[in-house]
Amino acid sequence: MEKIEGNLLIIGGAEDKEKGCTILKEFVKLAEEGREAKIVIMPTAAEKSDSVGRMYSDIFKDLGIRDVEVLKIDSRADGFSKVAQRTIEEATGIFFTGGDQLKITSLLGGTPVDFSLQKAYKKGVVIAGTSAGAAAMSATMIIGGNGDSTPQMDILNMAPGMGLVNQVVIDQHFAQRGRLGRLISAVAQNPYILGIGIDEDTAILVDAQANLKVIGSQTVTIVDGFNSTYTNVSELKPKQALAITDMVVHILPHGYRFDLKNRKPITD
Amino acid sequence: MEKIEGNLLIIGGAEDKEKGCTILKEFVKLAEEGREAKIVIMPTAAEKSDSVGRMYSDIFKDLGIRDVEVLKIDSRADGFSKVAQRTIEEATGIFFTGGDQLKITSLLGGTPVDFSLQKAYKKGVVIAGTSAGAAAMSATMIIGGNGDSTPQMDILNMAPGMGLVNQVVIDQHFAQRGRLGRLISAVAQNPYILGIGIDEDTAILVDAQANLKVIGSQTVTIVDGFNSTYTNVSELKPKQALAITDMVVHILPHGYRFDLKNRKPITD
Repeated sequence: MEKIEGNLLIIGGAEDKEKGCTILKEFVKLAEEGREAKIVIMPTAAEKSDSVGRMYSDIFKDLGIRDVEVLKIDSRADGFSKVAQRTIEEATGIFFTGGDQLKITSLLGGTPVDFSLQKAYKKGVVIAGTSAGAAAMSATMIIGGNGDSTPQMDILNMAPGMGLVNQVVIDQHFAQRGRLGRLISAVAQNPYILGIGIDEDTAILVDAQANLKVIGSQTVTIVDGFNSTYTNVSELKPKQALAITDMVVHILPHGYRFDLKNRKPITD
Repeated sequence: MEKIEGNLLIIGGAEDKEKGCTILKEFVKLAEEGREAKIVIMPTAAEKSDSVGRMYSDIFKDLGIRDVEVLKIDSRADGFSKVAQRTIEEATGIFFTGGDQLKITSLLGGTPVDFSLQKAYKKGVVIAGTSAGAAAMSATMIIGGNGDSTPQMDILNMAPGMGLVNQVVIDQHFAQRGRLGRLISAVAQNPYILGIGIDEDTAILVDAQANLKVIGSQTVTIVDGFNSTYTNVSELKPKQALAITDMVVHILPHGYRFDLKNRKPITD
C-alpha cells in the first residue's frame, strides 16, 4: 500500500442531507480545521451539473461555510482553465458529486486541473466523493455491472480511475443495489486489491496512514482475497460463474476502523 | 455436524424447467437409482397448490417418470391422513415447491406425515426443495427480511424449520435478491451456523457424509463465521448496523464441492 498523503472521504451515495447530515458535517469539519474553509464542489459526474452543484452549495452554506464555489468542468477544455486550477489550489475541501464516474475521468484525467487536484490532495486537503465521485477515487474503478447477480466476469466493467487511493477497488450503493457479486468479481481478478463496498448514507474516511474509519448509518463491507487458495478466474468462459475460496470478509458500521496496509480491523 | 442420512437437493428457486433442466434431471436420476421411481410433489408452500403441483407433475412426466403424485396438504388435518403417510412412505423422491416456508412448517410440523418424511429421509430417499422448499430444510430457517439491505438484526426473521439439515441456515434467490446482508445477520447470531446462499437455477446436493456439491448455472455463497474474532450482535439496538470481522466466504459454481463438517472446499 503506497503512502497516501491526504484525507479522503469516500461516500456510498445517498448521504443524509436533511437530518443529522453526519457525513457532510464531517467533510465540513475537515475542510475547516482551524482555518477559513473554502469548499469547491465538482459536479463533473452529474448530468444536471447546475442543479446538483446548487444543491450541495446550499447545503454547505447551511452548514456554516461562507466560501463555497461550484466548479463546472463540462469539457476537457475546461480542465485546462487557469481559473479552474487556481480555484482547486485555493480549496480547503473538494467535493465530487454523483453521476457517471466515466465523466470524471474522461473529462479531467491528465488535465492541469487533475494535477492541481493531486497537488491539493498531497497537501492534505480533504477530497470527498459520493456515489460516482466515490467510485472514481481508486486506481482502477468499477464503471458498470449488474447488481443482484452472481459473481461472473461478464457482469463487471472496469476502467482507470483517479488513483487517489491505490490497491483498493470501491463500490457504492453497495447493499442497496446488491453489489457483492461484482465486487467479488473485481477482487478475484487480482486478490491483492481490497474490495470496499460502501452502503448508502455511509462513508469511509481514509487518513494519511491508510487507516479508514466508517462514518454513517449503514455498513462497509471489506472483501479480502489475499489468502484465497483457489480461483478459476483465468479459465472462465463468458457467462460462466466464478469460483473463489477462502476470502475474508469484514462488516464494519459507524465508528469501526480498518488498517488498509495490514488488511485488518483496528480493535484497540 | 450431525450425521445426515439421506440425500437433499436444495434449490435456490427459479430452476430451469425448459432447456437443459440440469437440476430437475438430477432429482429424477436420484429418485430412480436403478428402480422404478415414484415421485411425490409437495406443493404445500404454494398459494396456488393445484396449478403448481400440476406444472411439476407435467415436467417430471416429460422427464420420463410414470409414477408422479401431487400430495396436497392444505390443513394440519391433511397431515394426519393415513393415505398421505403411505404416499410418502412409498416415494423414491419427494419434491417441495416454492411459496411460503411457514406454510410448510406450520401445516406439516409434528404431524404423522412429517414423521413419514423424516423416515423416508433416513432411508436415503432424495428430498428436494426449491425456494421456500429450500429455506424450510434447515433446523432454523429464514422467513423474512429485506434483500438489498445492510446487515442489521431488524432485517431478519427466523423460525424453526424442518430440521433435515442442521448447523446451517439456507437462503435462496441469493444473488438475485441481494440477500448477503440477511445471511450474514443470521450467521452473526450464532457463528457456529454455516450460512449457505443459493442463487436461482442453482442447487446443492447434500449427501450422507455432509458433503455438498453445487449443480446449476449460478453460484453458491458459503459464509463461515466460525473464526470470526469480533461481533457486536449482542449489544445492538434496533436499527443499528451490525459489525462482524474475519468471516470466511467461498463462492462455488457448478461442480464444486464443500465439506460441511470440516467447513472447507473439497479440492481433490
